[in-house]
Amino acid sequence: MSFAQEIVCARCDKRFELSQLLNLCSCGSPLLVRYDFGRAKTALGKASLQGRVASLWRYRELLPLQDDANVVSLGEGYTPLLDAKTLGGEVGLRQLWIKDEAQNPTGSFKDRGLSLAISRAKELGVTKAAIPSAGNAGGSFAAYAARAGIEAHVFMPRDTPIANQIEAAQYGARLTLVDGLINDCGRIIAEKKTAEGWFDVSTLKEPYRVEGKKTMGYEIAEQLKWRLPDVILYPTGGGTGLIGMWKAFAELEELGWIGGARPRMVSVQASGCAPIVKAFEENKTTAGPWHNAHTVGSGLRVPQAVADFLILQAIRDSRGTALSVSDDEMLAEIPRVGKAEGIFFCP
Amino acid sequence: MSFAQEIVCARCDKRFELSQLLNLCSCGSPLLVRYDFGRAKTALGKASLQGRVASLWRYRELLPLQDDANVVSLGEGYTPLLDAKTLGGEVGLRQLWIKDEAQNPTGSFKDRGLSLAISRAKELGVTKAAIPSAGNAGGSFAAYAARAGIEAHVFMPRDTPIANQIEAAQYGARLTLVDGLINDCGRIIAEKKTAEGWFDVSTLKEPYRVEGKKTMGYEIAEQLKWRLPDVILYPTGGGTGLIGMWKAFAELEELGWIGGARPRMVSVQASGCAPIVKAFEENKTTAGPWHNAHTVGSGLRVPQAVADFLILQAIRDSRGTALSVSDDEMLAEIPRVGKAEGIFFCP
Repeated sequence: MSFAQEIVCARCDKRFELSQLLNLCSCGSPLLVRYDFGRAKTALGKASLQGRVASLWRYRELLPLQDDANVVSLGEGYTPLLDAKTLGGEVGLRQLWIKDEAQNPTGSFKDRGLSLAISRAKELGVTKAAIPSAGNAGGSFAAYAARAGIEAHVFMPRDTPIANQIEAAQYGARLTLVDGLINDCGRIIAEKKTAEGWFDVSTLKEPYRVEGKKTMGYEIAEQLKWRLPDVILYPTGGGTGLIGMWKAFAELEELGWIGGARPRMVSVQASGCAPIVKAFEENKTTAGPWHNAHTVGSGLRVPQAVADFLILQAIRDSRGTALSVSDDEMLAEIPRVGKAEGIFFCP
Repeated sequence: MSFAQEIVCARCDKRFELSQLLNLCSCGSPLLVRYDFGRAKTALGKASLQGRVASLWRYRELLPLQDDANVVSLGEGYTPLLDAKTLGGEVGLRQLWIKDEAQNPTGSFKDRGLSLAISRAKELGVTKAAIPSAGNAGGSFAAYAARAGIEAHVFMPRDTPIANQIEAAQYGARLTLVDGLINDCGRIIAEKKTAEGWFDVSTLKEPYRVEGKKTMGYEIAEQLKWRLPDVILYPTGGGTGLIGMWKAFAELEELGWIGGARPRMVSVQASGCAPIVKAFEENKTTAGPWHNAHTVGSGLRVPQAVADFLILQAIRDSRGTALSVSDDEMLAEIPRVGKAEGIFFCP
């Protein structure tokens, strides 16, 4: 069972029923799930997690799905938090952890969001869905849609890495290559979705991908025995994971499982596409679109994030920061971290 | 702590101390770890597993490592057993499970064996090690060796997929490409290892990779609540996983955690390299070398398995069988399984 209670607009606080199939609020902002923590607090203790399934579904009551029959799962989540002793020592840290999200079913943390989004889409009767993707979200979406029996349409920039394209196609998705960036892909879906009967699964344009991503926050807390790290570094494209973790920490405090201390949230972007960094430095509450976005970190090439204001708010509320790294720096870290820790970073 | 007691030759029953750094027995056969199940049976109940780490290290007492300080882990094992309802229905099965080994740290089940082999190598003072690999074992070895601080030497056939080559190199291994097959790589290591001071980590030429692989058998049993499946299909190159699972089931019975019923073990090989299938059909107890081995399943291109007799014995003892599939059949299944289940098969 689930303690999900209603859907609430992140900007104007308008409320919606859980039984509705929703995208953005009528005010244009993302919608978030709100839970009944009054009930959850008395019914659910930390100890109840012991012995549960080793996937994000171990937090079943804190996820929005109504009926277990609609779970679409490939075993996503509950990834290891690896002690990076050698690398930590090299950069002068007493303790450095790496959350290895590559151990998810299709190889990235996108699986968390898409397991939740596709499960809820199935629950609410969706039969056709579409997604824009500049990296590995397309393949992840295609995998979960295939498993759910939902017809999948993926729109990718023409220069998306060929592995991402092949992956989506091999899962049976219909793939369209677009001369443009991820925002152009998103615009095409918005234009066609009504006529085609597609549900739009763009991140934060529906309320559930962020619910999957928030489980990274639950897991970090549980894996560190309900103490949070001092700082979290988060590579930021659309920023859903950062927003999700921030939401998770608030929820864990409402449950009484952690106190009020929070990590400083640090958003890391590619210097060729760093709209959040620019907005943070200019002290703005939203980020303008980034022009001529380019970076070898293809999944980070998101020139405008729909929930920019939530990312910036979490960074500031946590006394965090935002910073950018060049493609050369990213590429140089791959063999360095590989040799130090046995972990293969994706740019 | 560990219930490992001694090392025993799989053919001549000669015994060795756990404190020795070992490769093959003097009779040329693989060595296996034997445990003290008399003690284990009274000290270790199934229930003790509840709430343990979600990796193969949950079976800590049934692994040969002496000191926890030597564990070299990236979170390997405890992969999901996925219900393949759609595919099962298509092929007329009431219940079909897929053990998704791609969710291991470097993307394959090789991580199980190499986590154990490198942990024990570290424990026994190894500083340099070498491996032959025709597929993803090289990258896995390189990752664990990097994490352990052991100098890694990888020998691959020149036509090994470029992704496997890059991976090993990015983890800092020294990569040598060989004009030949995996057996030629193994021969070069055997010739050079004494002069170079390398420990040979070839599968089943040291006693611990099979100890890691056996955990697939433990996990299948635990995930199915201590009932084994009727049949296990196993893609067979060196066959270490099949031998390991067969060993695991015997161990679980000695522990009293399962009864005497066993799955039928089915060895599946590529038709371009099927020495086990040929030996099984010809009713032989060992397999001759396969000439002109070729298959798109690069990791399956093992023309001669060092423990061929153990593979054939497990197949026969279980009333199983051995069969081969063509490259075309393998490749046709990738989009089929992708679309049916959201799982991306590697050939």
